[in-house]
Amino acid sequence: MKYVTLFASLVLLVLFSTVSYSASDTLMKQANRFFKPLPRVMQSKENPITPAKVKLGKMLFYETRLSVDGTVSCEKCHPFSLYGADGLQKSVAVLCRIAPRNAPTVLNAAGEISEHWIGNMKNVEEQASKAMSNRLDGNYTDVLARLNSIQGYVALFKKAFPRDKQPITFHNIGLAIGAFERTLTTPSPFDAYLKGNKRALTRQQKEGLKTFIDTGCIQCHNGTYVGGGMYMKFGIFAPYWKYTMSKLIDKGRFEITKNKADLYVFKVPVLRNVAMTPPYFHDGSVGSLGEAVRIMAKIQLNKDLSKDDIAKIVSFLGSLTGKMSQATLRVPVLPPSE
Amino acid sequence: MKYVTLFASLVLLVLFSTVSYSASDTLMKQANRFFKPLPRVMQSKENPITPAKVKLGKMLFYETRLSVDGTVSCEKCHPFSLYGADGLQKSVAVLCRIAPRNAPTVLNAAGEISEHWIGNMKNVEEQASKAMSNRLDGNYTDVLARLNSIQGYVALFKKAFPRDKQPITFHNIGLAIGAFERTLTTPSPFDAYLKGNKRALTRQQKEGLKTFIDTGCIQCHNGTYVGGGMYMKFGIFAPYWKYTMSKLIDKGRFEITKNKADLYVFKVPVLRNVAMTPPYFHDGSVGSLGEAVRIMAKIQLNKDLSKDDIAKIVSFLGSLTGKMSQATLRVPVLPPSE
Repeated sequence: MKYVTLFASLVLLVLFSTVSYSASDTLMKQANRFFKPLPRVMQSKENPITPAKVKLGKMLFYETRLSVDGTVSCEKCHPFSLYGADGLQKSVAVLCRIAPRNAPTVLNAAGEISEHWIGNMKNVEEQASKAMSNRLDGNYTDVLARLNSIQGYVALFKKAFPRDKQPITFHNIGLAIGAFERTLTTPSPFDAYLKGNKRALTRQQKEGLKTFIDTGCIQCHNGTYVGGGMYMKFGIFAPYWKYTMSKLIDKGRFEITKNKADLYVFKVPVLRNVAMTPPYFHDGSVGSLGEAVRIMAKIQLNKDLSKDDIAKIVSFLGSLTGKMSQATLRVPVLPPSE
Repeated sequence: MKYVTLFASLVLLVLFSTVSYSASDTLMKQANRFFKPLPRVMQSKENPITPAKVKLGKMLFYETRLSVDGTVSCEKCHPFSLYGADGLQKSVAVLCRIAPRNAPTVLNAAGEISEHWIGNMKNVEEQASKAMSNRLDGNYTDVLARLNSIQGYVALFKKAFPRDKQPITFHNIGLAIGAFERTLTTPSPFDAYLKGNKRALTRQQKEGLKTFIDTGCIQCHNGTYVGGGMYMKFGIFAPYWKYTMSKLIDKGRFEITKNKADLYVFKVPVLRNVAMTPPYFHDGSVGSLGEAVRIMAKIQLNKDLSKDDIAKIVSFLGSLTGKMSQATLRVPVLPPSE
């Protein structure tokens, strides 16, 4: 009798393991249909990554002297101490102007279809270049003269752009910063999971992944970057500002296209490192990740998530928190003004 | 005959070497009378340096959430990319206010007799603590509540101040940041020279050192930090603003003491890393190091330095450019807001 019980238990155990194994196997397969692990770097045909460009680009990323009043660098709104974002609802730009929208993290951003919430910048190169030359009341040529006056930079630009006679240009500044930004990938437990390591996610994270898929979040937040691949109206089932408590109504891509179909349309944000980069949404109007998840399900998918489901999804999103490399976390030393 | 010439040449060579040797020996001895090599860290009896305090202090040094508007951290005005200063004439503080004076480098600053140009802060601990609590229109207690709401910090403060029941206080923030700043020493070729390595300085740097001593610069710029040890009137032989082109006349320590003897008196700045931290003087009114040297000799010592002497002194000052440690150059990752 004893043995029969033991045998039955063993059979049950084996059966249960198989079921559990194949369920988890199914989830991993499903995940690999919707997502992809991060590449080591985010290549671009138009801007091949070279060590000389990356070195210069990193310095320029930290370079406040690129700004008209000497107070702002890329790093100011994208410090690595806060995972490439600044924790503010809206950043403070040169001359103490408030930026129009929340600064998303620069980490993994080069993989998106475009830059900025409304996608008005083609890629990281254009974004970096125009961040300087676009908004400085016309006196931005001073910035190039300033760089030209710093011996250290003259040599570094020559090395990064050996074919150019006058390598210190806004275009090349954009290419160098872009090349640096293309190295800013942050491999996470989720990548390890996608590559086959079942233990890389906790049970709750796997349940969260399943909930994320089943709820429909993956309709927009998919691909290598878990977002960043398409544009979508914010507030399909209800005006977003009724849920986010946004103070201003932002018309989104309509601002650039003037097409009514683009009213309240924004780029779907990348969710990698989302747990490390509050506040959320284009205006940083929501501080809690759970609250952001709840609002998204409600106004994008017309679903009322339970507290438990929200906790599971938040747990899954935590598995998207990656590791910044030693190189990323090392401050570059800049040449002094002369 | 040939041998006599050879012998005479040898005698001359030996004599010359001895003279040259003893001259360089004298210079090194003289230098060791006026200066001292940097310590590894800048100890304080009141604030013993512990790894837990340094770790927390470094994070707080980068922490913009310590500022009332979330835009300013210590690091904003003291980025290590620019050798612990910000390259501006005057920094931009919270709420876009312009700081009253130039931000000196934080490197080696803990070794000074006091902090700020007018010495109104006793030490780095007081400076760090009051930078937050002094100037925030009374609503600075929010900052403590903000820190308390971030789990990561609660644990780090407990570890750094194990005896305190409520360790998150402005006083402890100052102690932690101070402990971190006390690690920011930058050993330079000049330190190697003071310790006996004659080759650590180039010939021009040694000539510059001699000129620096003979001109009288060492009357104020002496000790371990080549400055930072006393207060002195700026403009002994002529009003400083006639030479610096300062836009405002700053009364210096008179502002705090209301004593006429303190009119235009400032703390003698540390010259370590001076070549890396333009612009110069309390108001950052002079951009070129050579020009700053010329003005100082003129209005402090009533001496007109030749171009050659200025070049030598600038060369010597270059030997004060030290090395930031790997630890100093590593960005700390901060816990996200919750």
